[in-house]
Order: sequence, then structure tokens, then C-alpha cells
Amino acid sequence: MKYLITGAAGFIGSNLADHLLDEGHEVVGWDDFSTGQERFVENASRHKNYQLIRGNNLDLQGLKSAMKDCEQVFHFAANADVRFGLEHPSKDVEQNILATFHVLEAMRCNDIRTIVFASTGSVYGEASVIPTPEDAPFPIQTSLYGASKLAGEGLIEAYCEGYGFRGLIFRFVSILGERYTHGHVFDFCRQLLDHPDRLEVLGDGNQRKSYLYVADCIAAVLHTVRFNVGREGQSDIYNLGGRQGWIGDNPFIFLDTTKIQKTGWHAKVSIREGVVRTVRWLQENRWVFTRLVS
Amino acid sequence: MKYLITGAAGFIGSNLADHLLDEGHEVVGWDDFSTGQERFVENASRHKNYQLIRGNNLDLQGLKSAMKDCEQVFHFAANADVRFGLEHPSKDVEQNILATFHVLEAMRCNDIRTIVFASTGSVYGEASVIPTPEDAPFPIQTSLYGASKLAGEGLIEAYCEGYGFRGLIFRFVSILGERYTHGHVFDFCRQLLDHPDRLEVLGDGNQRKSYLYVADCIAAVLHTVRFNVGREGQSDIYNLGGRQGWIGDNPFIFLDTTKIQKTGWHAKVSIREGVVRTVRWLQENRWVFTRLVS
Repeated sequence: MKYLITGAAGFIGSNLADHLLDEGHEVVGWDDFSTGQERFVENASRHKNYQLIRGNNLDLQGLKSAMKDCEQVFHFAANADVRFGLEHPSKDVEQNILATFHVLEAMRCNDIRTIVFASTGSVYGEASVIPTPEDAPFPIQTSLYGASKLAGEGLIEAYCEGYGFRGLIFRFVSILGERYTHGHVFDFCRQLLDHPDRLEVLGDGNQRKSYLYVADCIAAVLHTVRFNVGREGQSDIYNLGGRQGWIGDNPFIFLDTTKIQKTGWHAKVSIREGVVRTVRWLQENRWVFTRLVS
Repeated sequence: MKYLITGAAGFIGSNLADHLLDEGHEVVGWDDFSTGQERFVENASRHKNYQLIRGNNLDLQGLKSAMKDCEQVFHFAANADVRFGLEHPSKDVEQNILATFHVLEAMRCNDIRTIVFASTGSVYGEASVIPTPEDAPFPIQTSLYGASKLAGEGLIEAYCEGYGFRGLIFRFVSILGERYTHGHVFDFCRQLLDHPDRLEVLGDGNQRKSYLYVADCIAAVLHTVRFNVGREGQSDIYNLGGRQGWIGDNPFIFLDTTKIQKTGWHAKVSIREGVVRTVRWLQENRWVFTRLVS
């Protein structure tokens, strides 16, 4: 198969590209490197089946050309700058809503029908049901990021119904592993590298949070895509991520992942082992602390 | 008060403008007349408190200027061309999603915090709960129109949370009355004017459908806005429209309107009387059959 991945130089996108290449597939990596990292595509770029194209999702013509001969699209590019969304609201509208629309239009133009979309548990807002299932009560959006991802979901669903697309929407939370570049583990590592004798932890230190290891995340996505093969005209939505959150994590997101587990997929790497691998990678790649803000 | 109404030359927007002027308020009417009608703003335009500005919601600068000194915005402009949405998907994205974003930005720039938004029962997709309450299970979108309106809702909600806006979102279905220009009653009238001896009705003729009279709709909206006064930073969502649909009306939408009734608002005009008034208006305004497609 030949796949196009948007956000191919990002945390999950670059891991996915490497995985698909390992499986023997062809991959077109699409990224504008606004937050993606050159080093994350170094391995893939040496592969004969990999083609890297630098472009932004606002460039519809570029996207159309990039998708030529591809069979499926993983739309993982996004403005994931949740915290500063309010400082530049057009970023979420452009990079998450318009971008998704352009991806869909470029697919339609190339007669590609299957889209896998990285959404977020943030679409549940302040969920009234916890753990939150995919069919939780119709939520009220509490962030521009969540609202823009929800808009992307809606467009994909409408393309499924209207144009016979097949959509797989994953509402992610709390992924970690190699190339992980923001979140609690990242912050803790940075602090301990800065001042090994002292760690500042918000709250009382008794919070628990769980993560899903990125290789397990990718296995879950690919398992689910293949599990649902051939369901054209339909969108399927799955929660994916940490199975245990903690009150005080604001916003509190704790997703019910029963549905994706029912497809037969289960995580292989424990949270402990996932954290160990992440920390090891961060220690070996200290450049990320200077290049990236968490 | 000084209000801005987008879609001020449309069915509901123009009735709202007349009503607010009658109440003694100032109104800025904003419309690009792509579907709005000159004749619908004739009365208002003679009023000293009315200012008509021709402009499209894609023109952010124009919107910003138009909103100067306004205190509330009724955002009723939309691409309501549900049936042909698939022929030009960018129309829904531009006129419903981007337009709403521009309205919000123009408000933010003018420090206007209250937005009343005309959404649609279509956001429930194929609802699993009927009659459908506002907090029905998280729906899957089935039309570009619904998806684009949902995106607008999400943006408004995020602005409420992030910028202290106050949002009132009304999910409309089945409004009729003076200046009503599409739907079953419109089709029946057109047929009977064309061939008074024959009426083609889809289905077996036993379907029932209920409508809300436009003056009642506007009373409901204004009642709810005033009922909820001062709830900044919050978005409130209300179903509003016909209380009885019929299976076979595709898509089947039958909203639970308990929530808005609990504010103390109740319809004054019966469905029968609403239909009579609509038909009378259509008979007196036959130009709409030649100017508009249903």
C-alpha cells in the first residue's frame, strides 16, 4: 500500500511512517516543519519507499499533488498548541479545520476514500460521564483546540455519508515514547536535568496518570483500520490513550477505551516500561529540550 | 440596545429586525443578498433606527466596521442550501464555519460579548434518541450543513470559555410564516398555484409534521436571551422548532423542546393558524416562487 501521512515529522506521524516502512509499504510524508523535527524523519528519509514533501495543509494544490497514487491518508498534522490557542485563534481554525477540509478535498480529487484522523479527548469538554465513552452526552466545547478538532471530525463524517469515504477517528490522550516532546514526563525530565536534586510537582504528588506507549498507539490504529476494512460510507470513532487519569488534571480527561479493546487490540507495553523508554530516549536526545517548548 | 443581525435579509433575520425595531431598538442589518431578498428589508430600511450594510461574512474588516457600537450580535446568516451541499462543499466551510469565526473575531475586536446563533437540528445526524434532547448521545454528522453548523457551535462555545463570551445557540427546525421561502408548505402552495386541481404528496399522505410560527420563534429567542441575561462565559443550547415530525421525513428530526419550554416560553400561534398565515403571505407574494427555488 501507498500511504500519505500529514504531520509526518511529528511525534506520532514520524513513528507511524517508520512502522509502515518497516512493514514494506510506501509512504509519502507531508509536513511543513512548523513543529515537526528534521531528526524525526532522518531514518525514513534514507528508505527507498519514502518520499518527503514539505508543505502546509493550506496549500490545497500541493496536497493534491502529494497524494497522487496514494491509497490511504493518515491526517495527523495539527496545531497542537492547546495552551496558547487563545492568543492566536486563527491558527486552530486554519491548521485544524481548514487543513482537514483541504485534506478531504485533496483525497476526493485523487479518489482516495480512507482517512485516519488524529482527534482528541478534548472534544468531550468537561465530560459529564467519566470514564467517557465515544457516545457520551453531546458535549460543550471548552477549548479552541477541541472545537477545531470536533469540526474536523464532523467534516470527515459528512464526507463519509456524502461521498462514500471511510473515516476512522481516534480521540487520543496521553501518548508517550520515543520522540515524545511535551507533557508531564517531558517536564519532569527537563527539571531533573536542570536541577537533579529537586522536582517540582503540581498538586499533592498523589495524582495518577496513565499513558499509552506510542508503538502500542500505532498498533492500535493500524489494527483498527484493518479490523474495519471495507466499511465505506461510514465513520468509526475510537477513544485511545491512557486508561486512568486524575482529578486535578485540568481539563480532566479520562476516556473509556472499551470500544477499541473490543476490536481485539491490547497494549503490550506497560505504563512503567513506556515511561522508562521515554525517559531513556529523552536522555539520549537532550536537544529536544532546547529546540522545543513543552 | 443596538443589535447587529447577520443574514438580515433572510427569512428569520428580517423578521427579527422588524421585531427589534418595533421594540424601539437600533438594528444594523448585514447581508450579502446571495439568498436574502431586497423586499424583506424594505420595511426596516424606512426606519430611522435601521442601518443596512451589504457585506459577506468572509470580509472580516467589513464585519468589524459594521459592528461598531453594537451590543449584541444575532448570527443568522448561513449557507442553508442543505440539499446541494455536496456539489460545492467549500460553501458550507466558508459561509458557515469561516463566517462564524469572522463574526466571533469581529465581536472580540469590538468588545461585544453576546452572540445568538441559529444552528440546526441537523447537528444530531441520525439521532439515536427521539425526541432528541440537547444532551443526546454525541452524534455522527450526516451532512456538510450539519457538520458546518456544529463547527460554528463549537467555536462559539470555545469563545465563551476562553474570552468570556455569552453564547445562545438555537437548534432550529421547521419554522414558517411570512417570508418563508422553502419547505413543504412552500412546495404545496407552488403546486396548487400551478395546477389547482392536483397536489402531489410524497408518502401515503398520512404523515404529520409540525411547524413553529416565525413570530413565536423570535419571541422564543428573545425570551431566552433575556431569561439568561448576564451568564457570561457560558453557552446555552436550546432546541427550537416543530414538536412533532414524521418518520419518512429524511432525515428524520424530531427535537425535544422541553428545555426551552422550561424557561417559561410557549408558542402562541397554533400550527394550523401558522400555516394559514404562511399560505396567505405566499398568495400575496407570488414573486417568491419565481425568484427562489425551494
